[in-house]
This record gives sequence, structure tokens and C-alpha cells, in this order.
Amino acid sequence: MSPTRKPPDPVQDRRGEFALIARHFVRPGSPRSPGVELGIGDDCALLTPSPGHQLAISSDMLVEGRHFFPGVAPEALGHKALAVNLSDLAAMGARPLGFTLALSLPAVDDPWLAAFASGLFALADQHGCPLVGGDTTRGPLNICVTVIGEVLPGRALRRDAAQEGDDIYVSGSIGEARLALEHLRATPWATAALPSLPKHLRDRLERPSPRVALGQALLGVAHAAIDLSDGLAGDLGHILQASGVGAELQLVNWPLTAELKALPEPHRLECLLNGGDDYELLFTAPTSARTAVDQAAKSSATPVHRVGRITQAGGLRLIDATGNARPWTARGYDHFI
Amino acid sequence: MSPTRKPPDPVQDRRGEFALIARHFVRPGSPRSPGVELGIGDDCALLTPSPGHQLAISSDMLVEGRHFFPGVAPEALGHKALAVNLSDLAAMGARPLGFTLALSLPAVDDPWLAAFASGLFALADQHGCPLVGGDTTRGPLNICVTVIGEVLPGRALRRDAAQEGDDIYVSGSIGEARLALEHLRATPWATAALPSLPKHLRDRLERPSPRVALGQALLGVAHAAIDLSDGLAGDLGHILQASGVGAELQLVNWPLTAELKALPEPHRLECLLNGGDDYELLFTAPTSARTAVDQAAKSSATPVHRVGRITQAGGLRLIDATGNARPWTARGYDHFI
Repeated sequence: MSPTRKPPDPVQDRRGEFALIARHFVRPGSPRSPGVELGIGDDCALLTPSPGHQLAISSDMLVEGRHFFPGVAPEALGHKALAVNLSDLAAMGARPLGFTLALSLPAVDDPWLAAFASGLFALADQHGCPLVGGDTTRGPLNICVTVIGEVLPGRALRRDAAQEGDDIYVSGSIGEARLALEHLRATPWATAALPSLPKHLRDRLERPSPRVALGQALLGVAHAAIDLSDGLAGDLGHILQASGVGAELQLVNWPLTAELKALPEPHRLECLLNGGDDYELLFTAPTSARTAVDQAAKSSATPVHRVGRITQAGGLRLIDATGNARPWTARGYDHFI
Repeated sequence: MSPTRKPPDPVQDRRGEFALIARHFVRPGSPRSPGVELGIGDDCALLTPSPGHQLAISSDMLVEGRHFFPGVAPEALGHKALAVNLSDLAAMGARPLGFTLALSLPAVDDPWLAAFASGLFALADQHGCPLVGGDTTRGPLNICVTVIGEVLPGRALRRDAAQEGDDIYVSGSIGEARLALEHLRATPWATAALPSLPKHLRDRLERPSPRVALGQALLGVAHAAIDLSDGLAGDLGHILQASGVGAELQLVNWPLTAELKALPEPHRLECLLNGGDDYELLFTAPTSARTAVDQAAKSSATPVHRVGRITQAGGLRLIDATGNARPWTARGYDHFI
């Protein structure tokens, strides 16, 4: 709506929507990725999934001031907008096929767009996941990515497949993104713990690494999986609820970075259990699969740690170093509270 | 980010994101649509396309104040958010499989959400296109729908397939949405032409009917197709550019509603050619296919009108009632000018 004037050849006009797309989002050689018959520039993109596969689809919307700080580096934002979606594919064990990008921008800012596209495409290339279409419009900054992947029928890692007796694993390390967030917000306990924010912690918040290879390596090995986006306790809670089981988490032997180890326990537990933005995988697997899990971790070059086990229904219990259970109430992130 | 508190059972909490989704977007019986193995509630939705089919994918983002007036009826908005995406599938001749919805809302407004969902699902049901996943967040009102369809390889109606000598057709009637828009904006020529805005014109703007059945009926009949979203002249221009051809449009025998007929010619042509928001199909087909086009129109219960023909390269020419050509410069809608 709000029809306005457009010159006959919009690609020649640096102000126009089509020109913006051509400058920043149409790449030489595209859409010649395997499986992409038609990319940007028609009413729809056309993708060809592998024969006999199911589709895995996820959409995430990132809003300025809520999912990222105003002024965040646009290259990091481009990376993260795709990373959080690839992380959803990873959690199903799906192979990425392609993604769409819908972008609402307050104005055309070419240096910003070039940096955003560079972060976006670097991660897309790393995962062989081409941009196939989307939309641009003027409005408050908002980034909506929809990713499409494929997986063989019956093989996807679902939330409802955890079984009593399963081990619980977490990939990589968690909690750093939350510590970085609190530091950027100048929360007193975070700035007291760290005089300045090390780059590797900030990168954990702004440039998460989706565990796509691990997810696929876990097909046929793991039972249930979820990606850690809203905080471990809450996300594990989704598996427990969907699978009708409970869980015990050991508070020893966690994969902790030095900065997390140095935090007072309440803040450390808050970062670990209610942190959010980790984009690691939490998954369950039978004890008989321990060797297979190790092999999946090795083949995907992704560290994994056994952190607990699935129990009968009964919620989530934390087991401390003395073997005593303590209750824990999940308080993950919610956009509407 | 911005982690805040969430009670243990978010579905019991009327304020929470998961509760919002459960109240308004999870429907009894879902995801038991054909082809949907897993709907809302896991990291990804799982869809099963028909064997041997390609995927057609499109995303559109609607922003308040740009794509719709603040205060527009939420039921109409829910309808339109999906309709504009289904229209993209229609333009490829694809069959809808499902869609995702990412929604940014300034606040949780249950009556608004209930009406929005009702408009959305009524259209989704009409086209057998289930909601399979998405995202909700707090922020300026923004609606991003991604639709997934399927089509047999090599059959999709692309923009680059028009051939010299093809007839040009338009479905339904066009221009009414633009007239309604100008009336709602109180543009003097529109309010001079119509003392009040009839509901059928307003519905053309707010409740477009995507031509999904026609698109599929045209497979193997039409050469090229596009949906009319940005204005006929500009959208036809995309076909001409992609196919390396020109076109002549006859200015007689247009499918005009009475209100359009009554407009002074400059405004009538503006509505017809630069209107936007029509969500009709424009397609080309060889003259040998005229009977087949009629049959496709009949089988899909969608009127179509032959309005011109594809010529050698040379842009777009309008032929008036006296047979004389007049030049026309496309001035479709652009979000960034």
C-alpha cells in the first residue's frame, strides 16, 4: 500500500527495494546451489528436497531492543539471525536446505546492510544453506528468518522422545551468553565479576555457533533433543513435559569457562540454568549409546558433556556435590512477561 | 535476551508467550493435517511433501502503518497476512502445504488476537494450509508469514517463461483495492468519486482472495505468471524483463467494476496500472491454449480476461480504443522510495 513513485528500472535506482535486494542479497552465481532451482526474483523460490525426506521448518523473529541491543554490530546481527534458526534445525538433526529473510528497516543504510549481509552469508556458506527469497520493507528494525531443512522420516530428534534412564547431555558450554548480556547491561554482579567483557564471552552472545553437524551426527543415537535458547531449565522442561518424564541434573562436572567458575554460586546457577541464548544442544540418549554419543561428538568436532539423567515424572531436581537434591524452578525467558 | 521471570507452567499464565500461542494458535486436532507430522511445539515443524515434488516458498512481512492502517480490523489483517503469501503460491501454480507465522506485538490483547487468528484460520482452512510453527515476540506490530507449497518439477509458472505471441490474461478485476486505499486516505479524487466506500471495494483491499485454484489449473496451460501485488504495469514489467519480451495491453474490454468505470480516465488508469494490492494473477499463454485457459478458469471458478499480448522486446505499450499506442511508465509501489 501507500503507493509511491518508482522509476522504470528500479535496479538502477539506489533508493529502491529491488535495488537494495540486488545490491546486498543477490549473489553472483546464485541460485546455483544444489537443490535450489529458483532463488530470489520470482513469486516463490523453488527447492528440491532429497527423495524420501521430510521437511523441517522453523521461523524466528528478532526485534531491536528485545533480541539485540540497538547499535549492535550489523555483521553479528546477520550472523545471529540465521544462527538461531539453524540451531532449530540442529535440534531436529535436520540438514539445511535454504532460508528466507524478511527484513523491516527504518531506512536504507548501505554500510549497515553490507555488514549485515556479510555476517549472514558467511554463516550460510559455512552450512551450505543459501538465501532463496524473502521480503524487504520500511519499518521498525525487525528480522524474520525462516529456515527449511530435511531429515529422513521417523529420524528427527523430537522433544517427546526422552525415556526414563536416558543420559542427559549438553554440547559445548553454557551460561556465557547470559553473563555477557548482564555485563553489557551493566548489571552490578556482572561488572563486579569482570572489569571488562572479554571478546570470547561477547561472541557467545552475539555470534553463537549452531550445532548443525552434531545434530545430524546424533540421528539414530539420541532420543530427544532441543536447542538451548530460553535457558537450560526451561528448555529441558519442554522435553520433560512433552515426554512425560522427570530429570536430575548433576551440579558437578559442568563444562564451565573460567569466568563462570569464578562467579558466586547464585549468579553462576542463574547463568547456567536460566541463562538463555546458549544455542547449544541438550539431548538425551540411552546409556547403551554412550560410545555412539562420543563418536557423534568426535565426528562433528563438538564437545558434549553428560550432565544428568531422565527419571520418572516428577519435574527437575538438581543434585549438588554432596549428592543432595535441591529443588529448582525454571524461569526461562518469556517475551510477554 | 532481556531474560525475565517465567512461572513454572507458562500455559497456566495468561501473560506468557507459550500461553498466548496455546490460547490462540494451537487448535484442537492439529497437527493432524495430511502431510504435517509435527506442528507447533517442537524446534521445527515436520512436513511431508508429496513424492517427487519441488517446494515453493515465499515470505511476506506486513508492517503497521505501511501495509495496513493502524486500527484495521484484526480479522481482516489475519486474512490478508496469509492471503498475500498464498497469492505467491498461486502465481507459481503450487499447492499449499503449510505456513509459519512470526508475530511481533506491542502487548497481549486477547480480543485482537482472537479476531486475528479467526481471520487467519478461516483462510487457512479454505485452502487446506495449516499453521505449522512460528514465533511470537513483543515489539512494534509486525506480521511475517512464510508459506510452503509443492509443485511437480519443471511445471511451476515462472516469470521468465513468457513467449512472443502469448496472450496476456488477468484474473478477476483489478484497481478496486487502490480506489479503496485512496478513499480511506481521503484523497480528494477518490472521495469526490464515491461519497462513501462500499464494502465490496473495501474488502478488495482488506480481504483479497488468492487465486490458488486458478494457479494450479493453469499448470501445463500458461507459460508465465505473476501475482499482482505492486501494480499491473510494474508486475508485468517483471515478466517482460525476466522473459526478454515486450507487451501490448488493450485499454478496451477491461474487467472494470462500476466504480472504476465512473472514474475520470487518469485516475482509472492509475488504479488499473499502478494500483497494487490486487492479488489477482497475470499470466501469459499461447494463442493455441485459449480453450484450455477457458477450461482452467471454469474449473477453478475464477473469471479471467484476455487483456493484451506479448511482443518482441520493447517495453510496455498501451493500445487505446482507437487502436493507437500510448507509452506508459510503470510506477509500482516501492517500500524505499
